Amino acid sequence: MPDPATYPAEELANIAANAIRGYPAETLGYGPIEGLADLRMLIAQRYSTPSMTLSKSNVLITTSGMQGLDLVGKALLDKGDLVAGQFPTYLGALDAWRPRQPQFRNMDLTSADCDPFAAMNAAKFAYTVPNFSNPTGRLVGAEMRSTLVDAANQTGAWLIEDDPYGSLNYEGPLPPNALEIAMRCGDTGPVVYLGTMSKLISPGLRVGWVIAAPQMIEALTLAKQGSDLCTSGITQRIACEVLKSGIIETRQPTIAAHYRSRRDALCAAMSEHLSDWFEWEVPAGGMFIWAKARDPRINTDRLFEIGLEEKVCISPSSVFDANGDDCTGMRINFTLNAEDRLVEAVRRLARSVERLLKEHT
Amino acid sequence: MPDPATYPAEELANIAANAIRGYPAETLGYGPIEGLADLRMLIAQRYSTPSMTLSKSNVLITTSGMQGLDLVGKALLDKGDLVAGQFPTYLGALDAWRPRQPQFRNMDLTSADCDPFAAMNAAKFAYTVPNFSNPTGRLVGAEMRSTLVDAANQTGAWLIEDDPYGSLNYEGPLPPNALEIAMRCGDTGPVVYLGTMSKLISPGLRVGWVIAAPQMIEALTLAKQGSDLCTSGITQRIACEVLKSGIIETRQPTIAAHYRSRRDALCAAMSEHLSDWFEWEVPAGGMFIWAKARDPRINTDRLFEIGLEEKVCISPSSVFDANGDDCTGMRINFTLNAEDRLVEAVRRLARSVERLLKEHT
Repeated sequence: MPDPATYPAEELANIAANAIRGYPAETLGYGPIEGLADLRMLIAQRYSTPSMTLSKSNVLITTSGMQGLDLVGKALLDKGDLVAGQFPTYLGALDAWRPRQPQFRNMDLTSADCDPFAAMNAAKFAYTVPNFSNPTGRLVGAEMRSTLVDAANQTGAWLIEDDPYGSLNYEGPLPPNALEIAMRCGDTGPVVYLGTMSKLISPGLRVGWVIAAPQMIEALTLAKQGSDLCTSGITQRIACEVLKSGIIETRQPTIAAHYRSRRDALCAAMSEHLSDWFEWEVPAGGMFIWAKARDPRINTDRLFEIGLEEKVCISPSSVFDANGDDCTGMRINFTLNAEDRLVEAVRRLARSVERLLKEHT
Repeated sequence: MPDPATYPAEELANIAANAIRGYPAETLGYGPIEGLADLRMLIAQRYSTPSMTLSKSNVLITTSGMQGLDLVGKALLDKGDLVAGQFPTYLGALDAWRPRQPQFRNMDLTSADCDPFAAMNAAKFAYTVPNFSNPTGRLVGAEMRSTLVDAANQTGAWLIEDDPYGSLNYEGPLPPNALEIAMRCGDTGPVVYLGTMSKLISPGLRVGWVIAAPQMIEALTLAKQGSDLCTSGITQRIACEVLKSGIIETRQPTIAAHYRSRRDALCAAMSEHLSDWFEWEVPAGGMFIWAKARDPRINTDRLFEIGLEEKVCISPSSVFDANGDDCTGMRINFTLNAEDRLVEAVRRLARSVERLLKEHT
């Protein structure tokens, strides 16, 4: 749900034409399963740190971040395997893995009683979104990130660090990634990092990447062979040229200002119209506000239905719960719509809450 | 393994730039899981017949033909399920399904004793490549195609008709597709047809499609959601414009002549240098010659190894056998290399056979 107005269409049109003209065999033919060597090298450089230089053997190019999740499931999950998942969590990850019938154990990484060592015990992997997690928009703190790496090392579980939103950062610098923390010991250790071009430049590329130990990259490559043989050479070459051009870095401050202003408009309207019924934190980045109902009569599954009648759309918390039980919260996107529409949406949502509460009288 | 010289790079560069400029939100944003409505309609029109008009509810866009195979496995296969597979068969299909641990039953559709009713009994689906099957390059005859549709209807198995090579047709018209035969009764019946842009224009697009009954399309769409959310809008819009432009039809005779001449050069050289040791049929299309050893001392797994030392590459028959047992044949590609290289390759292959036979003396 990024704002389509942020896509640099003219630049990408030129980059696409030059990519096909300049690299016809690479863009139009079959490519290596692992991805174009140039793109793997650019990603390796982008994530290398003073503690460790990554090489292309640490990188697999995927057809979207979602494919990374699917391949993790294909490579690691058998029926009944345990996944320790940050809770609440992105429903796409659950959808990718559900057909493999794993068991899910919830980890609330923002709660003081969360014990990742216990949660990851006997788990195949832990699934985490440390930066502006969907749906809550929260950051996992620096200390907890280190704890997650330690817990993965100690329990033998892999640590999946899914990072689609890290670039949507509207305030100060972010804590180090779990990947970076692991690399302080000279290798990627238990971390399997998933990145994507979707929020860096455009979801239409469907280009993502996995960074992990070479043996894990080999296992995921084998799974990718049976998924789509290789990612499009056209979109991969566009991704290369975008990364080399510096337009991601040039555009970042403008996009951050654009979304910060929408976030602030939404939060101001919510404070005016919804604060009696909901509480929330203002997120430092991402695309969403996560609001919890103060009033136990507010069932957000029902609020979703009434909202649609009032022509406003929220995501109820139940869809982020592997068991579908939680009806006490909602996710609101602030990146797609302009300020005036967000304010109007909040007014409609307030009307929807009033209608819901009347059903209880 | 198409010849990269056949890719119309200049046309595709212009089409790509215009696609992004003309449709920025569609090409650069997230799209529908099922694919762009325009592309689904174009595919539906392309395969409609006098007996039946297909609609977009019959069409799912996939990220390559390989993804179609993966989604079929995700939607249909549980551990131990039976797949009746045309034998020998494309190893990509086996790779896509092997992790689900199905059982495979071989069907030799060119053999007089083949009984598809028996082969498909209790199978979840039959996997067939009626046009220029990889590796044999053979056509399944019109009568057998009708029998396959009847057998699918009678046994309740789905009939997967994988058709990546139908456009690589160098002689007369083809028998009707199983899809077309099924549609004579007014619906797509048991047929799940898989098509792709790879050999029509360029594999680099990674755009394919499935045509089937709407309920099957819905099941495959659900599986696609957990695979990559949607196919790239850029490559889908390029596919739309390519289909509308007519360049596929304009180029077809030239490409057919190009590959026909390579096939003929390879077969002439094989007749001169290999006919004592191998027998083969000249295929009417596709990309491959399938040759069977006349001499039981010729093990093609070993020939593959010696060939690499002589710097010639064949595919031994074992890789097209789900059980990996068959060492009596080889597949030779004739589309990638020019005539003089094909002739030199056959000379090297003849030398390799001589070396192999010396190992037995």
